Formats: sequence, C-alpha cells, structure tokens
Amino acid sequence: MNAVSFASDYQEGAHPRILERMASMNLLKMPGYGTDDICVSARERIRKACACPEADVHFLVGGTQTNATVLDALLAAHEGVVAADTGHISVHEAGAVEACGHKVLTLPHRLGKISAAQLGDYCNTFFSDLNRDHMVAPGVVYLSQPTEYGTLYNLKELEDIKDVCRKHGLRLYVDGARLAYALGSAQNDVGLADLARLCDAFYIGGTKCGALFGEAVVIPNPQLTPHFFTLTKQHGALLAKGWLLGIQFDELFAEDRYLSIGKPAVEAANRIRAALVQHGHRLAFVSPTNQVFVVLEDEVAKRLGNLVEYSFWERSDKDHIVIRLATSWATTDEQVDQLLLAFSKP
Amino acid sequence: MNAVSFASDYQEGAHPRILERMASMNLLKMPGYGTDDICVSARERIRKACACPEADVHFLVGGTQTNATVLDALLAAHEGVVAADTGHISVHEAGAVEACGHKVLTLPHRLGKISAAQLGDYCNTFFSDLNRDHMVAPGVVYLSQPTEYGTLYNLKELEDIKDVCRKHGLRLYVDGARLAYALGSAQNDVGLADLARLCDAFYIGGTKCGALFGEAVVIPNPQLTPHFFTLTKQHGALLAKGWLLGIQFDELFAEDRYLSIGKPAVEAANRIRAALVQHGHRLAFVSPTNQVFVVLEDEVAKRLGNLVEYSFWERSDKDHIVIRLATSWATTDEQVDQLLLAFSKP
Amino acid sequence: MNAVSFASDYQEGAHPRILERMASMNLLKMPGYGTDDICVSARERIRKACACPEADVHFLVGGTQTNATVLDALLAAHEGVVAADTGHISVHEAGAVEACGHKVLTLPHRLGKISAAQLGDYCNTFFSDLNRDHMVAPGVVYLSQPTEYGTLYNLKELEDIKDVCRKHGLRLYVDGARLAYALGSAQNDVGLADLARLCDAFYIGGTKCGALFGEAVVIPNPQLTPHFFTLTKQHGALLAKGWLLGIQFDELFAEDRYLSIGKPAVEAANRIRAALVQHGHRLAFVSPTNQVFVVLEDEVAKRLGNLVEYSFWERSDKDHIVIRLATSWATTDEQVDQLLLAFSKP
Amino acid sequence: MNAVSFASDYQEGAHPRILERMASMNLLKMPGYGTDDICVSARERIRKACACPEADVHFLVGGTQTNATVLDALLAAHEGVVAADTGHISVHEAGAVEACGHKVLTLPHRLGKISAAQLGDYCNTFFSDLNRDHMVAPGVVYLSQPTEYGTLYNLKELEDIKDVCRKHGLRLYVDGARLAYALGSAQNDVGLADLARLCDAFYIGGTKCGALFGEAVVIPNPQLTPHFFTLTKQHGALLAKGWLLGIQFDELFAEDRYLSIGKPAVEAANRIRAALVQHGHRLAFVSPTNQVFVVLEDEVAKRLGNLVEYSFWERSDKDHIVIRLATSWATTDEQVDQLLLAFSKP
Repeated sequence: MNAVSFASDYQEGAHPRILERMASMNLLKMPGYGTDDICVSARERIRKACACPEADVHFLVGGTQTNATVLDALLAAHEGVVAADTGHISVHEAGAVEACGHKVLTLPHRLGKISAAQLGDYCNTFFSDLNRDHMVAPGVVYLSQPTEYGTLYNLKELEDIKDVCRKHGLRLYVDGARLAYALGSAQNDVGLADLARLCDAFYIGGTKCGALFGEAVVIPNPQLTPHFFTLTKQHGALLAKGWLLGIQFDELFAEDRYLSIGKPAVEAANRIRAALVQHGHRLAFVSPTNQVFVVLEDEVAKRLGNLVEYSFWERSDKDHIVIRLATSWATTDEQVDQLLLAFSKP
Repeated sequence: MNAVSFASDYQEGAHPRILERMASMNLLKMPGYGTDDICVSARERIRKACACPEADVHFLVGGTQTNATVLDALLAAHEGVVAADTGHISVHEAGAVEACGHKVLTLPHRLGKISAAQLGDYCNTFFSDLNRDHMVAPGVVYLSQPTEYGTLYNLKELEDIKDVCRKHGLRLYVDGARLAYALGSAQNDVGLADLARLCDAFYIGGTKCGALFGEAVVIPNPQLTPHFFTLTKQHGALLAKGWLLGIQFDELFAEDRYLSIGKPAVEAANRIRAALVQHGHRLAFVSPTNQVFVVLEDEVAKRLGNLVEYSFWERSDKDHIVIRLATSWATTDEQVDQLLLAFSKP
Repeated sequence: MNAVSFASDYQEGAHPRILERMASMNLLKMPGYGTDDICVSARERIRKACACPEADVHFLVGGTQTNATVLDALLAAHEGVVAADTGHISVHEAGAVEACGHKVLTLPHRLGKISAAQLGDYCNTFFSDLNRDHMVAPGVVYLSQPTEYGTLYNLKELEDIKDVCRKHGLRLYVDGARLAYALGSAQNDVGLADLARLCDAFYIGGTKCGALFGEAVVIPNPQLTPHFFTLTKQHGALLAKGWLLGIQFDELFAEDRYLSIGKPAVEAANRIRAALVQHGHRLAFVSPTNQVFVVLEDEVAKRLGNLVEYSFWERSDKDHIVIRLATSWATTDEQVDQLLLAFSKP
Repeated sequence: MNAVSFASDYQEGAHPRILERMASMNLLKMPGYGTDDICVSARERIRKACACPEADVHFLVGGTQTNATVLDALLAAHEGVVAADTGHISVHEAGAVEACGHKVLTLPHRLGKISAAQLGDYCNTFFSDLNRDHMVAPGVVYLSQPTEYGTLYNLKELEDIKDVCRKHGLRLYVDGARLAYALGSAQNDVGLADLARLCDAFYIGGTKCGALFGEAVVIPNPQLTPHFFTLTKQHGALLAKGWLLGIQFDELFAEDRYLSIGKPAVEAANRIRAALVQHGHRLAFVSPTNQVFVVLEDEVAKRLGNLVEYSFWERSDKDHIVIRLATSWATTDEQVDQLLLAFSKP
C-alpha cells in the first residue's frame, strides 16, 4: 500500500542510535532485570533532567502495564483513581485498573482535561458525604500530558490541581505516554522538573517518543513505594533483559535528546493545521502538540482513506466524522507534503 | 569484569538476523498490536511447525505476564492451577497468578517434575472429598518443559498426564520458557506437534532462546479463549509495536531455526558436565538440557566466583552449595574453555 | 430520642413468624451451608412463586455481597457490567464489583432508570467501535427494581431491555433489594414470573422486606453458573447456618406472604405523598413505591430533624435540600400520623 | 432421623438470651451498619475483656469473609500470609484469600500447628534469598486457636512466634473461630488479653460459640487499618442490621459469658475421650478442646454412622478412617450418653 500513514505515533521504529547501540553490544552478556550499568546511567540521566537526584526510576515495557502497576502501588484498597472520562485508563486499557481491584472515578473532560475546580468540587462533595465510608474514596488523580486530545495542562493548572490533592490527601500521577510532544510544543510551560516537583509519580513515554518500546516511571519520593520492583514483577511488567530499556532511555536522555525529539513532530502538526485551515478544512479543535483533529464529510473521508492512513476519532454529525492525524519524531517533510497533496485532491 | 558468565540464558542479546531485520525496517510505518503482515507470517510458520493449522498464536513480551494471562484465560473463578512446588509460577513470579485471583495448588516435585500418578491421586482425592465445594478445584495443570531443574518430560509422561487431565476435565498448559533447549536435547522425544496435540495452551519461549524478548502462546483450539486479545491488553501484555515480536518469531521459525537453535547450548552443557565429572566434581543431579548443577565446597565456590559468574542454586549441606551454570544458544567454545580452565584452577 | 424514624427500610427487625420459628427450633441440630430441609422447602416455594421449577436458588446474607458474587459469576474477564450511574453498585458498595476485577460501565440515569434505547445505543457504539478489543465489553446489564429512586421498570421496558441484551449477547441481572415494594405497588406490572422469564439472575431482597437479613438469588437456568455455591464460599457469602436463611425465606414465601408484605408500606408512602402535597410541600419527584422524596428549605429540614429521622438525599439548590422518607412493611398508621404531625409544625 | 449429631459445632442455634433479646426489640427501629448503642456496648465489653481499651472492634458475619477482609487489610500487595498447610484459609475457604490477590505461603503443620522455629527458618531463608524481590514476601502470620486439629498454642509458643514476627516485620493474626473452646480448656494459658497484647488482629468466633452467626474482629492498634469499615463494605461483610451482631456479642460478653461458655463442651469432649479409650478405641491424637478424633475400622465406622452423625476426617490406612466428633456449648449429658451407647454397640 502506498498511502502515507499518519495513523499513530507508535507506528515508527526507534531513534537510529538506539538500534545501533543494541547491535553493538548484542553479544555481550548483561545482568538482568535492570541491574546493569546502562540502566544505572539512564536512571542518572533522567534524575538529572528532572532535577530530582533522589527519584526512583523504573523502566517498564508499555503504557497500560505502567498505569496499572503505578496505580496499584499508589492506591490503598479503599481508594480509586480520579480521571477524565476520556482518560486512557478510563476507556482504552480493557479494564486493566479494575482488574487490579481499583475503581476509576471519572469526571467529565473538557478537550481531554479536568480542572482543579472540578476536582475540588468532587473532593468536597465526597468528603462531606455522610455515606462516604460506603463509597470509593478518591486516592489518586490521573492526568495525561499531553491528553488524549493532544491538549496540555499549563503549569498554573497543574499547580492548582496539586493544591487540591494536597488539601485532600490525594496523590498525583501523570501519564506521559506522549510527553516528548508536550516538551516539544512552544505552548508548553511544564518541564520535567515541574513534574518531578508536583507529581507523586509520572512516566516518561518511550514507545511513542523515539524508543522501540519502554516507559520510564519516575517516583520523586522513593519512600512512597518501597516494593515497586516486586510489584512490577507481579504485574508481569519486569523485562528480563532490562538493559534493553536502559539502552533506550540512556540514548533518549543523552544530550537531553528527549527534550527536543518531539519538536519536529509538533512543527509538522502545526504546518498541517495551518495548511488545512487555509484550504478550508475545519479542525474539530486546536491542540498544541502532535495530533491534528479534522472534521470531514463522510464522502471526503472515504476518498482520503485511499491516500492516507488516519485514525477514526468520532462521529461529528450525521454526515461528518472527525479523523485524527498523528505526526511523530520520525515524520518527514516529504510525508507532510504527501499528506497535504492528498487533502488537496478533489 | 573479566569473569566469563554462565549465570543465565537471558543474559544474551538476540540472533543476529533479528537485529538486522529490525534495523532494515526501522523507519517503515507499521500497524500496531500484532495486526501487521510480519506477525501474520510468524504465526503461520509457528502453526506449520506445530502441525496445527487452526491454532491461535499470540505474541507476548515476557514469561511471567504470559503465565498470568494464559492461566487467567484458562481458569474459571472456582479453579486453581496445579503445579510442582518448584514451578516458576509457584515461587519466582511474585504472586502474579494469585494477584489475578487464582490459587496455585502445589505438588512435591521430583527434579522439577510431577507425575501422572501424583496428579491422578490429587484429583481422585479432591473429587471424592465431601468438602470439595468449599475448596479450590484443580482446573489447569502447569508444567514447564524443560523444568526449572533442566529436566524433561518424555512423551509417555506427558501423554499420561494428559490422560489424567482428560479424565477429570482439567486443561494442560506448558511453560516453554526454555523450550528450544528441550528441542535441542538428544534425549527429548516431545516435538512441537506433540505439544500442540496434548496441550490446551503452551508457550514457545523467545527471551531465553534467541530473541531479545517475547513469548509465543499457542492455543490449539481457538474456541477455548475467544477474547484472549483483550485479556492480553487487560494484563498489560499487549505490545503496541507488535511487529517487533513478529520479526523475532518470524526469524526464529525461518527454516525451522528454533528447532535447532538450542542444540549447541545442550552440547556445550554436555561437554561441561563430562569434563567436570572427569575432574572429580560432583553434579547435584544430571539434567539433559542447557543447565548444569554442581556441588561445590563453599571455599571452592567462592574462589570460582572470581573467574566465573554463576547462579547460586541452593545450600547442599553445611559446607557445600549447589551452583547452576547455564549455557545458551550464543555460548561459544571459547567460553566453555574459559569455564573449564577456571574449574581446574587450584 | 423520641423522633419517629423514616430513615431507612432496613431499620426494622423481622416478620414475627420468623423469630418465632427461629426460637422454636433453636436447640435442634441442623446440617450446615443450606443443605437442610427448610432451605429445600424455601427454595421450592420460591421456584413456585416464580413459575420456574428448574431455577437454582441460593441464599446469601446481604446485598453488596450478593451483587458482587452474582456479577462475578455472570461476567467473563473481558466484560463489565452496565448500570445506571445512580445504581447501588456504581456508588454505594465501596467498589465491591471492581474489587472482584470488573468495571462498572455507567449510563446516565433518569430517575434511577436506564432505557432500552440508551442501552441499545451504547451497545451499537461499542460493538461497532474499531478499538472495542481494547475496551471493556458490556457483558451484563444491572437494573434495580425498584430503583434507588423508588421508581419501577414496567414490563414493556424490561422486555425491551431484554431484547437489546439478546441482540448483543448480554445477560440481564436485577437487584431486588426492595422487590417487595415493587410487588406491593399498584403501578407495578412485573411479577416474579416475569423476572424469572426475562432475567439471567435476580435477587429477592429479604433484608429490607421482612427478614432479619438475607437475599435469595434466583438463577432461572442453572447451567449458567454451575459452581455458584463455591463462588459464594469464595466471596465469603456462604452462611454456615444456612437454615437461618431458609427459615426466613420459607416464612416470607409461606402463603405467598412476600407478594403482599410490601403493600402497606406503599400505601403508607402514598398517604404521606398525598398529605405533603396537600399541605403545600414539594416532592422532588413522584415514585410509586415505599420512598418519598421531599424538597425542603434548609431551615425547615433542620427543624424537622428534631422530630423525624430522615435521610439526606441531595442538595437541591442553595437553600433547599431533598430528603428521603422510607416506609417499610412494619410502618404503622401511628408512625405516619406522627410524621405528618411533625411536618405540620410551624 | 434419630441419630445423635456430633458432626459440627456450627449445627446449634444460639444462646437463649440472644434470641430473647432479638425478639424483645424486634419492632424497634435501629440505626444501621453497627452505629447503634448495642454495638457500642458490645465493643466496650470486648475491649474490657481484652484489657485493651483502645482496640478497634468490628462485627462481621462469618469466618471466611472475616479472614479475607482482615488479611486484605493487613497485607501489602507484595506480601502473602504464612499459614499451616492445614490452616482453614489454606484449604477450606475456596481460595478466598487468593481471590483478593494474596498468596497463602504454607508451612507443614504438626497437629495443626506451626512453630516459631519453622517460621524463623522460613523468614531467614526468605530474607537472605537473593531472588527474594521476585518472590512473595511473608507479611502476616495466620494461626488458628484452637487449630483445625483442636490443638492449642500455649503462651510461650505464641510469644516465640510473635518474637519472630517482630524481628522480620510481620504482623500476627489469630483466627478464633472456636476461641471459646480454647478459653474453656483447662490446658489453655492464653487469655484474651494475651491475644490483644500479641496480635495485630484476631477474631473472637461467635458462629461456633453461642451466637447464631457473627465474628468480632479485634484490632488492638486502630492506627493499623484506619479504613477497615470501608473494606468490610467492599468485601460484602458489612451487615446492614449491625445491631443483630451487637446483640449477640453484647450477650456473649455479658458477665464474661464467653470465657466460660466453651467449658462444658470441653468437659464433654474429655468425657468422650476417656470413655472411648477405656473401651479400647484408639484416638488419632489427643487434643485438649472440643473435638475428638477417633480411628475406626471401616466396618465399625459404617455401623456407627446409623446411630451418630460424625465428620469424616481422613483415611488412616487401607482399613481404617479417622472420624471427628465435635461437642459444643449446647451439648447435653444425654447426647454424650447416647453417643457412648452407640460406640458400645457390637
């Protein structure tokens, strides 16, 4: 098939340096389970990038297992996790959080986000409810940065949410599956050090951001989850050849590569947004990262599908759907050209 | 460190063809979650090698998650899994099976194995116990081939166990984390087609057998677990970039490579066993695959540790321990020479 | 305290015949776990009342454990239970369903109810979603009859919901914690035989309907959950002295007592509703069973609280709350008089 | 059937005072969920009997749900519970502990007991195992007092076990399903205050010891499990009409009735043991509480079964079985006479 694909940001391989390094040490024998020196180096680089020298850093394989493992570690049995109703854990993880015994407590989203005000209302209502001991208590707040809608929490919003968490004794967890595309956005004002300062745990996404696979969990206060290693094992999330994850994050954080690797993707998305609008297409909403959401007539969407692989997002009305186009760290100018050409076809 | 390592068979990288193929297609965009053509090809090769054209084949990342996911799929809520008390799921998976809500029902092992007679007695006792409805029913039998002791079930033993399973309505599951080292042993008479004929599910180990990571679950009767895909997602065991697993198993099963990849490892282990015995060392027991278990005086073990990385297996008596040496598909003659030289040091 | 209580329908003891029978046989030795003759008789009476001679009938102790056990028995691992967002399992069972590993999939309620249309839309959307294998599938529909709002599904509504269930392969489960108050309502057209015909499982509430405690689970097709007994044990829901439950349901179904035991409660509630409206009070909504929901100014509610125990239901606006008054099978005319007198106080 | 029954101690009703009190207040309206004054009084009596004025006391319905709830409250996710392989949670609770996600780590019993030495060895081995982070850590020790074999831990044994717990950071939990029969034994030197001093949690059995149903959980240090109430709800173990449990324990602890209620049962068992031995019968082992274990030829056991209901315990050899006879607080001299007469039949 010759169609150019903007279907998802996990369709790429890895930054070339990663494969080179894997190949170069393929026949060296390495200790397992992340106890090797490359993991030590990768952890150190991440701690430095987060300005958090004490942080615990764990390398897991994929996003769903990371969310389930971290939330299981952070939640007490009587608690659930508060998330936007569009949050990945709420919808697209096949009930992984519930399978660990925890309820996801959903709040209505606005472009994928929830607000400190919403959270505060929810907590105030819950903690003043006379029946609260018969209910699941909010224990952790789950945010994604960027969200599933490609939108961003700004620093003020995060700090306000953190204030609500502090007030009610909740922990804050950020899912950074696409974090590189937040860090690469001109509109972003939340750095890794901010996340380390505000979160009880967050993860730095590798799979969609330059690695073959892998997510780096950062737990700023290691006292919080002393047995996290055993929990990763129990959740089937501990890779035997941990150095494969070490290599990937060591390369992604060499020369702070991760801070800039998402930038070209966001610029490509900006170029696509601008061109589509200029050509009279309608964006479902504007988001400042690597995802573009376009409203198309059914007929147009169908024709476009022969030339471009995209994701179906949702039905907009009787005759229109919203599609999603995702750029990535590996998107080329030629691919964008080909995409825009396809859009310009009659 | 200059010590030669025989600590484990997961210390290696991957068969060179795997890394080459990953590199060659690194910047191609691929569909996710195992829906790509390479996975299709790899599944087809495995079905053919198993002489089981109808089988469902799923690629997961690691052994613990595979065991937990498959057992969760095979067990009803009132059932548990019968395993040797030395089985990997019984001891070294951090309670992953129990974390999914299922009990492991252990039988005493003999060199890592359980017998049809033991299983039959257990089932007869259980199903004639008047209190059985207050107890966890045996639902699945878990075997490892080779076992954690490097021993093998022969075909007659497996068939006898299967007969007991049939009689009592149990399913049979084989953990093949090191399956290539069974297939590569001259003493083995159990082929992939036998496993496909006798098992309700088994997995073909990649991580320890030539892949970077990955295990291929074979379910001969796909009607048995129609929603296995969703369960892998729920268990956090679904790799976004499924084609990475496809590549690895497509290469491992190209020209039936998997059937022979373990042979040099077993031959190296045989050479080590023979040489050690000849030099007056005592084997804790003899096993016909890639693991060697040696009884050493504490003092000798300590000195040896400067020259060789090995695994501590267990204390044998007050003054002796048992160590484990594991060869792998990548073990070289030179490494064996270096090992034997180390043993010959005063 | 001399206040008359309309706080809840579980505040009563039991129908006098139950205590008499318990006392009369207190020192007889009985076989355990529901294997006694009284349980046999009670089951037979329930089967007859349900016109369902084949049904499995199990006696459990309380509502939350019943819901968790039945749903665990009915749901496959990849499935969740669809419920109104106001359903008891969604809100007031402390996450018991999720603690068993299952997600509650909520639909917005209308006076505690969901509709066949809503359910059909939900199922159509789900089963046509290309990502559905990454999501929790609807597996069971949970309804309460009467609902938490005291409202009723009529027969047509139930049949329509059942049609949607059939179309999409879902099972239907009805929580009848207050079922006697549905059966006792003049507006009800759904009998026990209808429930047995339409449901895959339902429970006949004892705790709130004349028993000291106990709920009778009816499973019209016993093939559906062959190991339900063991599941009740596993869920801690199996009473050792099962005959205590047998006595209660044998008495509640003697002379079909259960069919009429709720009638005086509904009549009392009707009398309260009429009187309150007549005296200028505003009902939050009208429901045809044993619960009355009244909008009160904060100040009035506070004064009333000295004379009447009621339940806080929700805040209506800045100056008003909604309170709930519950009558029961044991409510007397004198108690209603006292309540209405309290409302008439300045 | 005219056979006298010694099959189990849960075959009785309740102490007559309990039923009287239930009847006397049957039509009083009571607040739910254990918030009533009778529960307050019962808790206070138990605290006093335990010489532990700070203890948290919770009333649950049955033993299996109590064990599952308490262990879920005491265990961290990476921990399991150490128990004798004959412990009730290990065998006869249908996997309730595992269904909550926790592994039961079994030690071989000696007449139902485990020793401090065994536990110490287990802990020493575990905590010095280099692979321990891949294994389930011992987190709680589960003992039953009396054990399933009717045997008792003496104070020294309990203190030694507690010392091991302290050394390794384990919590100690005692299942007192039959605790009254320990307290009623002349050989017992462990009082309620000792349990409160040594245990992190224990439960005082009601179901087998004079109540209709109910178990009282004592948590000497309430800081240990601040959300225990919500956990009981989540486990379906919270009785709506909590005062029913309050009445039972208030009566059982009125005038310290619980301390002596088991004494006649033990005396009856002693009388049975002495008479059987005198008449040439063989006891399988001697235990000092209310259970008697007799070795019988198959033929004799069969004949006896026409006259006496007993429990099958286990097969002793080809021609003999062991039966269990259980006395209770309600056993009469006449019943013992009838039993002994049956044994004396040819």
